[in-house]
Amino acid sequence: MAMWQVGTFSKRLKRSGAMDNRGFQQGSFNNFRSSSSDEDLMDIPGTAMDFSMRDDVPPLDGEMEEDKSYNGGGLGSSNRMMDFLEEPIPGVGTYDDFNTIDWVREKSRDRDRHREITNKSKESTWALIHSVSDAFSGWLLMLLIGLLSGSLAGLIDISAHWMTDLKEGICTGGLWFNHEHCCWNSKNVTFEEKDKCPEWNSWSQLLISTDEGAFAYIVNYFMYVLWALLFAFLAVSLVKVFAPYACGSGIPEIKTILSGFIIRGYLGKWTLIIKTITLVLAVSSGLSLGKEGPLVHVACCCGNILCHCFNKYRKNEAKRREVLSAAAAAGVSVAFGAPIGGVLFSLEEVSYYFPLKTLWRSFFAALVAAFTLRSINPFGNSRLVLFYVEFHTPWHLFELVPFILLGIFGGLWGALFIRTNIAWCRKRKTTQLGKYPVIEVLVVTAITAILAFPNEYTRMSTSELISELFNDCGLLDSSQLCDYENRFNTSKGDELPDRPAGVGVYRAMWQLALTLIMKIVITIFTFGMKVPSGLFIPSMAVGAIAGRLLGVGMEQLAYYHHDWAIFNSWCSQGADCITPGLYAMVGAAACLGGVTRMTVSLVVIMFELTGGLEYIVPLMAAAMTSKWVADALGREGIYDAHIRLNGYPFLEAKEEFAHKTLAMDVMKPRRNDPLLTVLTQDSMTVEDVETIITETTYSGFPVVVSRESQRLVGFVLRRDLIISIENARKKQDGVVSTSIIYFTEHSPPMPPYTPPTLKLRNILDLSPFTVTDLTPMEIVVDIFRKLGLRQCLVTHNGRLLGIITKKDVLKHIAQMANQDPDSILFN
Amino acid sequence: MAMWQVGTFSKRLKRSGAMDNRGFQQGSFNNFRSSSSDEDLMDIPGTAMDFSMRDDVPPLDGEMEEDKSYNGGGLGSSNRMMDFLEEPIPGVGTYDDFNTIDWVREKSRDRDRHREITNKSKESTWALIHSVSDAFSGWLLMLLIGLLSGSLAGLIDISAHWMTDLKEGICTGGLWFNHEHCCWNSKNVTFEEKDKCPEWNSWSQLLISTDEGAFAYIVNYFMYVLWALLFAFLAVSLVKVFAPYACGSGIPEIKTILSGFIIRGYLGKWTLIIKTITLVLAVSSGLSLGKEGPLVHVACCCGNILCHCFNKYRKNEAKRREVLSAAAAAGVSVAFGAPIGGVLFSLEEVSYYFPLKTLWRSFFAALVAAFTLRSINPFGNSRLVLFYVEFHTPWHLFELVPFILLGIFGGLWGALFIRTNIAWCRKRKTTQLGKYPVIEVLVVTAITAILAFPNEYTRMSTSELISELFNDCGLLDSSQLCDYENRFNTSKGDELPDRPAGVGVYRAMWQLALTLIMKIVITIFTFGMKVPSGLFIPSMAVGAIAGRLLGVGMEQLAYYHHDWAIFNSWCSQGADCITPGLYAMVGAAACLGGVTRMTVSLVVIMFELTGGLEYIVPLMAAAMTSKWVADALGREGIYDAHIRLNGYPFLEAKEEFAHKTLAMDVMKPRRNDPLLTVLTQDSMTVEDVETIITETTYSGFPVVVSRESQRLVGFVLRRDLIISIENARKKQDGVVSTSIIYFTEHSPPMPPYTPPTLKLRNILDLSPFTVTDLTPMEIVVDIFRKLGLRQCLVTHNGRLLGIITKKDVLKHIAQMANQDPDSILFN
Repeated sequence: MAMWQVGTFSKRLKRSGAMDNRGFQQGSFNNFRSSSSDEDLMDIPGTAMDFSMRDDVPPLDGEMEEDKSYNGGGLGSSNRMMDFLEEPIPGVGTYDDFNTIDWVREKSRDRDRHREITNKSKESTWALIHSVSDAFSGWLLMLLIGLLSGSLAGLIDISAHWMTDLKEGICTGGLWFNHEHCCWNSKNVTFEEKDKCPEWNSWSQLLISTDEGAFAYIVNYFMYVLWALLFAFLAVSLVKVFAPYACGSGIPEIKTILSGFIIRGYLGKWTLIIKTITLVLAVSSGLSLGKEGPLVHVACCCGNILCHCFNKYRKNEAKRREVLSAAAAAGVSVAFGAPIGGVLFSLEEVSYYFPLKTLWRSFFAALVAAFTLRSINPFGNSRLVLFYVEFHTPWHLFELVPFILLGIFGGLWGALFIRTNIAWCRKRKTTQLGKYPVIEVLVVTAITAILAFPNEYTRMSTSELISELFNDCGLLDSSQLCDYENRFNTSKGDELPDRPAGVGVYRAMWQLALTLIMKIVITIFTFGMKVPSGLFIPSMAVGAIAGRLLGVGMEQLAYYHHDWAIFNSWCSQGADCITPGLYAMVGAAACLGGVTRMTVSLVVIMFELTGGLEYIVPLMAAAMTSKWVADALGREGIYDAHIRLNGYPFLEAKEEFAHKTLAMDVMKPRRNDPLLTVLTQDSMTVEDVETIITETTYSGFPVVVSRESQRLVGFVLRRDLIISIENARKKQDGVVSTSIIYFTEHSPPMPPYTPPTLKLRNILDLSPFTVTDLTPMEIVVDIFRKLGLRQCLVTHNGRLLGIITKKDVLKHIAQMANQDPDSILFN
Repeated sequence: MAMWQVGTFSKRLKRSGAMDNRGFQQGSFNNFRSSSSDEDLMDIPGTAMDFSMRDDVPPLDGEMEEDKSYNGGGLGSSNRMMDFLEEPIPGVGTYDDFNTIDWVREKSRDRDRHREITNKSKESTWALIHSVSDAFSGWLLMLLIGLLSGSLAGLIDISAHWMTDLKEGICTGGLWFNHEHCCWNSKNVTFEEKDKCPEWNSWSQLLISTDEGAFAYIVNYFMYVLWALLFAFLAVSLVKVFAPYACGSGIPEIKTILSGFIIRGYLGKWTLIIKTITLVLAVSSGLSLGKEGPLVHVACCCGNILCHCFNKYRKNEAKRREVLSAAAAAGVSVAFGAPIGGVLFSLEEVSYYFPLKTLWRSFFAALVAAFTLRSINPFGNSRLVLFYVEFHTPWHLFELVPFILLGIFGGLWGALFIRTNIAWCRKRKTTQLGKYPVIEVLVVTAITAILAFPNEYTRMSTSELISELFNDCGLLDSSQLCDYENRFNTSKGDELPDRPAGVGVYRAMWQLALTLIMKIVITIFTFGMKVPSGLFIPSMAVGAIAGRLLGVGMEQLAYYHHDWAIFNSWCSQGADCITPGLYAMVGAAACLGGVTRMTVSLVVIMFELTGGLEYIVPLMAAAMTSKWVADALGREGIYDAHIRLNGYPFLEAKEEFAHKTLAMDVMKPRRNDPLLTVLTQDSMTVEDVETIITETTYSGFPVVVSRESQRLVGFVLRRDLIISIENARKKQDGVVSTSIIYFTEHSPPMPPYTPPTLKLRNILDLSPFTVTDLTPMEIVVDIFRKLGLRQCLVTHNGRLLGIITKKDVLKHIAQMANQDPDSILFN
């Protein structure tokens, strides 16, 4: 088929509105049965229906390659349900961009592939080897994903660390050293002042040769803001120019993709490269954002790109999504050094279809990634994250009261954050604001940097802040937070009893309070800007500050009032009763839980961070309280809220549909609408069908025995229909507008001199899903969710009555929840 | 409805063979109301299949109560889909014993219940409180399950410990002390000989006042065997007389129950009491079995019994199964002190329907159970299990070779064990052997005890053995296994370098080799006997012995040949290169993996036992190898094999159906069979229907518009039909045999003097699931699995063609796998 014909067809498609009005576009697992008419298509070469939608997208090299690979998904394997003698028709079995895949068909195709390989494996040794290598390719892929995402995470950690320090100064001992490494390598440094070594020069030292006085302070201040602005500018420009998909945390989109949606290029190699670079820049710029969410996106990009090396995964959207689930686990694993938590995060929060095989493989990928990162050792302490801690002091039952208070705080903050952030993002989408992403980023960065520099706790990177807050004061800690009175006045080794707070602690307290307010406000405006931005770290920081404040307060209370009834049973004077670091950790868990509504995975991640079963109960109490409080103020977590904001077609598996509507209330056509457009199996001409195609925008048509009986035979996709007719008109001798199309197994003998018939049973899905009109919608929703359908036909007493698409279901759910049903944009 | 009528009907049911020939017995989520009473079917004896024990069991109160509660499931709430004006008909919406529940209907019912409560909650404060307490009842239930199962586990641990020691002697310082506690409390004991204190008297000391000489040995030997026989006899008798369901590990049955099968009394209070007692007896008797599997059963019994306190769970089979999933997690949690591993075990191995809400609740239950057990502190060491260890020495990459060898051993042992055990169990089922369970148990116990006593490692309890094998030799360890040369010749604190083995180690080696052989053989005959028996501990013991043997071998190799190329890069002389305890642990994981085919949960359980991420890679390598090797020799794990052996209707969710058959190949009627029995919606008389009920054994009938059109209207259950007709004949004036039954919404006006009509639309399921005849079976299997169906109707071009039941699907799967399709016994 020549390209001009493709052009013709895509024009016709556009004219008819199929591209803009995404009424319903289905793919079903058709062609399970081939028929005698199959040979018809034997000599039809590929109908090269290009993946048309991308006309309007700037064709980046990377993205084009992505496209090819996506297109490749269908080529060659789409048709395997039919006779294997037949040539597959290219273009069948692939999906358009921003469309939903048909899980049933994809899984069927994979099973067929597997069946074929298994059958062949008995024939020859080579085929056997192929079969074995096919079986192990999944494991190999996991290994590669683990290695790649672990390495990238290490790279990001090291670069971000270096660039964050670059804002404050530079190492003359070696430009590539960050502050800490610079002074490690120095010999001219005492332990007491381990951060101040001659090799490390602040900008004022370099530029005006002094570090003292107001002017030096201003120089450093200025350089700090300047670097921040430079990094932020680079980040937003790179994102804007090269890979618009690289912005944000990526988790809402990945959730949607895993549920079966297609967003071309979202997990492509340009996104990967740009996201990796800009993530480092964004983190280094000092904005209130983290790298944990984007690391999940980076790991998923790795997974997607590596899928191209394996036929099994390249060509099958469902199998590929299994790999992406595992990659998401690897991403969290390196973000928090928590392989088990990562797998549970993927299971609980991200994934849609998660068979047990994937669980095991995810675990493998997560472990490999964690070990890769550890062998890179980005923090020089054999730990995967900066804020790993080990506590040793036990907690007391009474402390559950403050922990639950922290849970309430976390829930309130979570609900508040989600509301305000969504409101701000909506404003960005609907007003002029959204048109100037670069300026927005620069303004926010400038404000953040200007406010941050004067305060020690906002100036340091957020990970460092969290690390300091989690840390329990030891004997040798020199930080402000550990400036207790009688510091050196103890004989008990490293464990210190509760002591009265010193001047440093009080100063730290009000600085932390200011930090808390600033983080709370600025994070609302930061999350959702056009730079890579994770939410985990800022949320945890907010919670950790609140927790530490409360913890120090409790500690002082216990010290000065250890004779109170609530204390005196377990807290004698001079004992180490309260661990403020633990409060910080509990607070962090509570806030993270309030924002994301994670539960088990949150507790497990925190458990892996502390390395002790001891503290699971406080963490759990806080996480549970936080989730309950936040849920009471708004059901959605931040990711679901962003999914809804963007109108992605995501069918939430956690929430049950709880209304008493029936399938007939949701199906199309509605009452008073014109009748459902159907094809008949043996009485329509090519012209009739072409008229229907031109006049309607539906992407699929039910085929019935006759208009009178309305008995359902099957379902045919618009796209397949167009390709096949065009093909037939070109190749098959004599197929003209008056030729009759047969969807039946055999066409009746024709009198001479009538035009030849066109047999299309092979593109007919002979097993469409049906429900009756009286089926409760809760069951329909369940079916859509569990089987991953795109559409479902509705019958009454055996007669076809209407159709329900995934979009109809989503709209109905939105309507029932008193939301705008038109917020669902895609199909 | 009077009892005589019940009698009539049950007779009719029996005559028609409905109870024996379970052609298909469906429940769909129809019949949201009905007639007559529940008791009807109460007195129909259950189809006593193999598991039949119930016939010869005196009807204990507990089991009867169980029954009622199960039946009670439908009362009161079954009714929502229809007119609320109508009275609910008792008996509708409940299930017979040994039948499968309809998940869709159960979930619908729960949603309706929830909806009703939510709606009411706006009306009054009291209703609001009810609504809130309803929402929190799940958490309360979890708390109670955790507390109860933790306490029971503690009780079992303590009693089993005491009774195991009772076989060897008794504490004169206090009869209730076990050996260890007895000597702890003693003052007359040196550290070196901490096991030998004057308060502890062996039987020979008590009986013949000496512990020396051959005669004393014989007395002790005799007493050991005697106690073992006594315990075993008590165990098997109690099981036989009071609760036949208490035998075995219970996990295959719990898997089946969780998949939706009903086995009355399996989780009842008598089962709980008897299983708890007999488990202690069986473990103490020294048989080669563990308490971990049965603890899951015990926890599930707790869950089931506690469900009765909450309407929400008592009345709904689906909700109750969610609770049972969580209870299973609590069971594993206390068995291994691994709450996260327990949840993953429940998710991976046991559960069928596991929504995320359950994940979180399971975690809560598992934690509460673990903390309860820890506060009971059965082992006096703040640990939850006897074999908790902490290793500190790192492992080396080269060691992966022996670890993988252990994996291969584990896989081979797993496959061998499953085959031989299943063959033996089949023999027990089919021959005379099965008729004498008491004698069988006594014989096996006698052989075990006689062989066990002379060998130190078989004489001790299996948990202790595992604990000793896992243990890394410290400086002060006095056991044989630590009898290295130059024991006290070190300066390095508690960590010892590799040393040459002493005489004790060599003796331990061959004793362990003998133990290995004995455990391998005897476990095959033990698992499946009529006593509670878990498989985890014996499997782990086999693996731990093999691992320790290999570990010591490696250690000696490394010591004597540290100049070999494979060692000299990392193992210098005098260093601590090899940790034999780690090998034991890896071996245990491999064998457990080979037998159960657990993966993630296994690794996580082991991770929680060692408490370090360090050793996950060795454990994972061994578990993966073991699974691959075992899978290559036979796909099924031990639990699935036992499910198949017993013919339970369990639709495996892990294995994909991989054959190219179509729905029409599986549906009934087959070709050449008589046509499908259908009812028409408006033309059959009461007599017609009664004839059909008498003549057929199907438990449900499709209703069509007319025989000619075969257009499907709905599906009606035999049981509902019988109840309704009987009801109508009794209550409704004038319904006689010639009355016409209407399933339509409105019946036409009747001429005078015709008998009144009977309207039965309310028992009609108006949304039966349908597929077309050309639907591939892989999709049908998927639908059955994911939606939890009991039956599905088959159509062709809108006409009804046949029906597929769950049993048909299972039979077809068995047939395709070249197994006996008649092995599926239940529906």
